[in-house]
Amino acid sequence: MDEGKTFKGKIGIVGSGALGGFYGARLARAGFDVHFLMRRDFEAVRSNGLKVQSFEGDFEIRPSVHGAAVDIGSCDLVIVGLKTTDNAALSDLLAHTATRSTLVLTLQNGLGNEEAIVAALMQNLGSSCEEASRQVLGGIAFICSNRIAPGVISHTAHGWIRLANFTGEASESTRAIAAMFGAAGIDCVVFDSLKQIRWEKLVWNVPFNGLGVAAGHAHTAAILADPTLLRTTRTLMEEVLAGAAADGAALDPEIVERMIKSTYAMGEYRTSMQIDYEERRRLEVEAILGEPVRRALAGGAAVPAMEMLYGIVARLDLMNQ
Amino acid sequence: MDEGKTFKGKIGIVGSGALGGFYGARLARAGFDVHFLMRRDFEAVRSNGLKVQSFEGDFEIRPSVHGAAVDIGSCDLVIVGLKTTDNAALSDLLAHTATRSTLVLTLQNGLGNEEAIVAALMQNLGSSCEEASRQVLGGIAFICSNRIAPGVISHTAHGWIRLANFTGEASESTRAIAAMFGAAGIDCVVFDSLKQIRWEKLVWNVPFNGLGVAAGHAHTAAILADPTLLRTTRTLMEEVLAGAAADGAALDPEIVERMIKSTYAMGEYRTSMQIDYEERRRLEVEAILGEPVRRALAGGAAVPAMEMLYGIVARLDLMNQ
Repeated sequence: MDEGKTFKGKIGIVGSGALGGFYGARLARAGFDVHFLMRRDFEAVRSNGLKVQSFEGDFEIRPSVHGAAVDIGSCDLVIVGLKTTDNAALSDLLAHTATRSTLVLTLQNGLGNEEAIVAALMQNLGSSCEEASRQVLGGIAFICSNRIAPGVISHTAHGWIRLANFTGEASESTRAIAAMFGAAGIDCVVFDSLKQIRWEKLVWNVPFNGLGVAAGHAHTAAILADPTLLRTTRTLMEEVLAGAAADGAALDPEIVERMIKSTYAMGEYRTSMQIDYEERRRLEVEAILGEPVRRALAGGAAVPAMEMLYGIVARLDLMNQ
Repeated sequence: MDEGKTFKGKIGIVGSGALGGFYGARLARAGFDVHFLMRRDFEAVRSNGLKVQSFEGDFEIRPSVHGAAVDIGSCDLVIVGLKTTDNAALSDLLAHTATRSTLVLTLQNGLGNEEAIVAALMQNLGSSCEEASRQVLGGIAFICSNRIAPGVISHTAHGWIRLANFTGEASESTRAIAAMFGAAGIDCVVFDSLKQIRWEKLVWNVPFNGLGVAAGHAHTAAILADPTLLRTTRTLMEEVLAGAAADGAALDPEIVERMIKSTYAMGEYRTSMQIDYEERRRLEVEAILGEPVRRALAGGAAVPAMEMLYGIVARLDLMNQ
């Protein structure tokens, strides 16, 4: 690892749940200067630390934890791990943590989060769209982690990240952030097109998150075992490919069968959306279904099954509150 | 009304719920020789008669009611009002009531019922497919009726019937049956293509029955008020048109906007499938969704939204038992 190319600076973790909490804890354990923003778990972590029960080895840290963004102050890097349903809070949270020289990395699900961050930065800093966009990075986190108690995160599988700049190709600072994750033992691969990797993740997320809710609490094995739902899964994946192409991201069509095959290996896996639904939390329906549908339609793609799934899940979300 | 052309003969009503019970009662009131097969309501009707609370005027009859098909015996006309989920009983019921000269009229929902009756007749009577098919008629009942208590049917709107032979064009006996309904005050229009009128009804039934279950207890007004679900309704209707065309029934594309418009006038209407779902009864998912999807696919039509809806509703039905 080239020391000069590893990101060093003050890191704020905004949204320190199963996602932000896990990555922040790994970075803090590796010696990086990490500051957590926590709401629900603030008291528990301040008193007892942040515990990670991981298949890669349990550990515990005594982090710098804060109950309000203003107490963290300006950061060199802000990592956003908020649920996308809380994006309305972004502007306030970034107002206290992001200056014009801050990099903001969102590890959130789906489409539309980078744009929400750009909008917040423009508003807070008076920057142009181009200026704000250059501060933003997107990452796709391939991880199975859950918050199982206040201040306790369970990490059951994976953990790698795909990283790209929101606009333009990967820069030196992108590679420095990837090196930082690498130094914390997190595989982090840099890509040149964020659109490409975001849409690729949706090929899996759209059918399995959507049907997991719409088809009556269907974990991945139940979907794969039902011939009609399996056909529908392929249909949805093809529609995501068409939507991606309409949005300017050409994906390899072989991804469909590759993802179906790898899903068989996952057993009775419940997606985050299914778990949210069963626990009556708000669903990430706009990031995972709504925004992809809108972009596909705007680009002229026909996505009838995806649009129906969006309509059904959005209404189920509404009825679930 | 030409007396010579009105059907006269012994009529058996097999499946005397909200549908068969209502039409049988109207025929019996008009003086036709009607015999009801009843299970759940047998004792109530034998003791207290069959009551119809209708927007066209309440009435009550003391019908010939039987608890077993064998007690009815051979009929000249059997009217099938069974729920399609009970079609496995058809063969037994027709074995006692249908000879080679019996006409069998199904007023059931969706596709596949005439074929189930033909199969039962072939098996019971040793007829060829062509012979059995000639005995079968299909009718589409446009009616809002519910069984609200043992032996009590509530009739809140409509009541007219579209009638056609299963194979070939309308025959003299088809017209005689239509005249019989007419004599009982039921508008009954004869058509030359059963396929045409069955598919036409599905243009409405597929989206509103399907989404009414899949989209979280959505009555028709809730579906129409949601922009995404309204778009999806149009998508589904277009797919039903494509499925109909693939199955050999060319429908007028203007039916889509006509049906959407007339649905606005229905208010917060709950379809039979939604009511069945909420009352945890088996759903008519194969007749209304499964068989139409299979025929559309067999004919080479692309029906991705319809197929997804079928997959979702079939699984919800399974989980609802």
